[in-house]
Amino acid sequence: MEFFDIAETWNRDEIRQAQLVRLRNTVEQAMRSSFYGATLRKAGITPDSIRSLDDLRRIPFTTKDDLRNQYPDGLNCVPRTEMVRMHASSGTTGSPTVVYHTQSDLNAWADLMARCLHMVGVRRDDVFQNMTGYGLFTGGLGLHYGAERLGCLTIPAGPGNTKRQVKLMRDFRTSVVHIIPSYALYLAAAVEEGGEDPHALPPRIAVIGAEPHTEEARRRIEEMLGLKAFNSYGLSEMNGPGVAFECTEQNGMHVWEDAYIAEIIDPATGEPVPDGEVGELVMTTLCRRGMPVLRYRTRDLTRFLPGECPCGRVHRRLDRMVGRADDMLIIKGVNIYPMQIEQVLMAFPEVGQNYLIVLEREEFIDQIKVKVELRDEAFVEDMRVLQGLQKAIARRLKDEILVTPRVELVQNNSLPKAEGKAQRVLDLREKP
Amino acid sequence: MEFFDIAETWNRDEIRQAQLVRLRNTVEQAMRSSFYGATLRKAGITPDSIRSLDDLRRIPFTTKDDLRNQYPDGLNCVPRTEMVRMHASSGTTGSPTVVYHTQSDLNAWADLMARCLHMVGVRRDDVFQNMTGYGLFTGGLGLHYGAERLGCLTIPAGPGNTKRQVKLMRDFRTSVVHIIPSYALYLAAAVEEGGEDPHALPPRIAVIGAEPHTEEARRRIEEMLGLKAFNSYGLSEMNGPGVAFECTEQNGMHVWEDAYIAEIIDPATGEPVPDGEVGELVMTTLCRRGMPVLRYRTRDLTRFLPGECPCGRVHRRLDRMVGRADDMLIIKGVNIYPMQIEQVLMAFPEVGQNYLIVLEREEFIDQIKVKVELRDEAFVEDMRVLQGLQKAIARRLKDEILVTPRVELVQNNSLPKAEGKAQRVLDLREKP
Ligand SMILES: [Zn+2]
Ligand SMILES: [Zn+2]
Repeated sequence: MEFFDIAETWNRDEIRQAQLVRLRNTVEQAMRSSFYGATLRKAGITPDSIRSLDDLRRIPFTTKDDLRNQYPDGLNCVPRTEMVRMHASSGTTGSPTVVYHTQSDLNAWADLMARCLHMVGVRRDDVFQNMTGYGLFTGGLGLHYGAERLGCLTIPAGPGNTKRQVKLMRDFRTSVVHIIPSYALYLAAAVEEGGEDPHALPPRIAVIGAEPHTEEARRRIEEMLGLKAFNSYGLSEMNGPGVAFECTEQNGMHVWEDAYIAEIIDPATGEPVPDGEVGELVMTTLCRRGMPVLRYRTRDLTRFLPGECPCGRVHRRLDRMVGRADDMLIIKGVNIYPMQIEQVLMAFPEVGQNYLIVLEREEFIDQIKVKVELRDEAFVEDMRVLQGLQKAIARRLKDEILVTPRVELVQNNSLPKAEGKAQRVLDLREKP
Repeated sequence: MEFFDIAETWNRDEIRQAQLVRLRNTVEQAMRSSFYGATLRKAGITPDSIRSLDDLRRIPFTTKDDLRNQYPDGLNCVPRTEMVRMHASSGTTGSPTVVYHTQSDLNAWADLMARCLHMVGVRRDDVFQNMTGYGLFTGGLGLHYGAERLGCLTIPAGPGNTKRQVKLMRDFRTSVVHIIPSYALYLAAAVEEGGEDPHALPPRIAVIGAEPHTEEARRRIEEMLGLKAFNSYGLSEMNGPGVAFECTEQNGMHVWEDAYIAEIIDPATGEPVPDGEVGELVMTTLCRRGMPVLRYRTRDLTRFLPGECPCGRVHRRLDRMVGRADDMLIIKGVNIYPMQIEQVLMAFPEVGQNYLIVLEREEFIDQIKVKVELRDEAFVEDMRVLQGLQKAIARRLKDEILVTPRVELVQNNSLPKAEGKAQRVLDLREKP
């Protein structure tokens, strides 16, 4: 086993020791900001009062609203002149959430990102094609700096323009791509439609992230493009990508516990959930100097996976995100995550790449309709076969979401698709 | 006077000594590529045969077609594993031209770019909003790395989304912007239309480039936005931006002669033009290891400006580009550069921000029509006033381009405009 960073080889004790030292330093640093200076003092927290990692729970949560209220720089711990980068969320309403980085923050971020890529077998002789947007979105520049740090030949292709992406891949023998999952499926289908075999494209590794997707979607990307796809997790408040990443075992994402403390809590009570149960991910930065963030409520729902990873790293593994607390749909009083629906659909081999969840209200009663594209070969003439499939999907969905949906089977490529993030939910209910 | 780099203080002798040593090294390095290995040997060039800078003229030119023919890596002088970045032109037909960079090439490029920004007064306490595209286009990442190197707070805003750009400028007190000239004018007009004063926006410095523009356009940007605008010149074959840049005297762009050798030649004969005359700019890299380029025919037309610059730097100054050899329009057998027309139009205070050159062929004879937007206050009711203005513009254009155009005065904002590069020429002539 080859490691990029000594921290990958730490045992639990070494991780916990480093976390405690770094948490104390982070609290000390955080108190230099106006926001944490006030809130930590109010909560009676000082660096010295952090005597064990259990003391973390005495620190108040930080929410997205806190970040918004502190816009533009209430969390900054060093003068602006020390900052060399700013990223901002693209929120549509109100103030964006802003994250500042010093040069040492950027270096540490690039190191973490390089560690992730190295973990899945990316090396300096690889050609890395970065197919996501640059700019304020952290995914583009985050992976870009990581790949350059590793010494890959980095192609800053940016998003879209499928023909050109494919030409670049072929001409430069691209071996690693960073791509949004729905765009990976779109690209594979586009190559196939052009009468060519997407398997023949050079990439052997895809880094996918920035969009929720299921295990089935990942397997489909791997099958269609003939490569290994690795799930990347991050959020701009924690830098962006580089927070947690799958190893070659593909059994959950190692969260880099030398750089972050991850907790999973009950979103209603704020208390930790029993190990292995799903809850809201809460994250604390341990290495950030410009703008540390303590106990950030990510709103992402996931769980810690039990057991040891055969790869040898003991950094705990996060399960695939099962949804956002905020994306939750409430239908007939039941909580439903779009991800649950996708997971059911993708288990049917007849199902194509695209689907759409339509929510309607008929005579004051919520209805959920799921439009599902079938692969061409599955769209047969025999109505009884199609009706059977329709019923089977509806039954499996009912089992999963506890509400009976209307299932509508449609032809391949008949649902709207976009280069970029796909629209998966259409809510036609009047707002109350 | 404060300098970023010792090379800014060199006298002509020191520059020439460094150029000779670096040219020899560059020739030695270049010969490791298959392309230069063959062409230099054929021309009888060895590093030792470069005894003075005059020997540069014995080296054959490199053209864009050479770069295309060597696609994808015939000019590479180090193994691909040493390369960490690739940029490619966005040419619409045929193979793109590709430039590879090693890590030391990227570092040297970032240093040159930081030197440019520093020269016009940008410092680490500045907030730098980068409003151009990232990706394969070199302008975005080029300025981004330079600003970070300088330690500015860098906002990777990317292009477009005017409302958001303005919000970022205000909220983060952006002091320096990198912006395409036509978009700067568009943004200023958009703010004005929203009933606000573009002068009140925080930026005090704009770096403008990537699009030909006139001195008058620059002055208008400065007046509308209440800032100083500095012209940046570069091309992807020479890294991108950072090749030549105006100092605070705004009297031409210092070309960094410690990193490049610039020549100006007669495009027809390949011989040097007399000092101060317009010709095609030819550039040689002196510091690039991954992919040096010798005597590159840029197709850009300019001249060396005579005299010494009061700023103290003796690096020779290039005049604003007067056009591309390839953009040249031939009308009734006369060579015309769109830039000449823009220069005439912008000298009229009545003229607005947008114009369009329309070429038509009527009964086998070329016609040139120039549609010109007038400012609102200039669009008066009195037809005689407008006819007088129309005639005056036509006369001045005739003096400049030696062909009589039809001039059409139109209302402000009536011509098509885009966020991004403006369309200035519409050629409706059938191709022969
Ligand atoms: Zn593992
Ligand atoms: Zn000067």
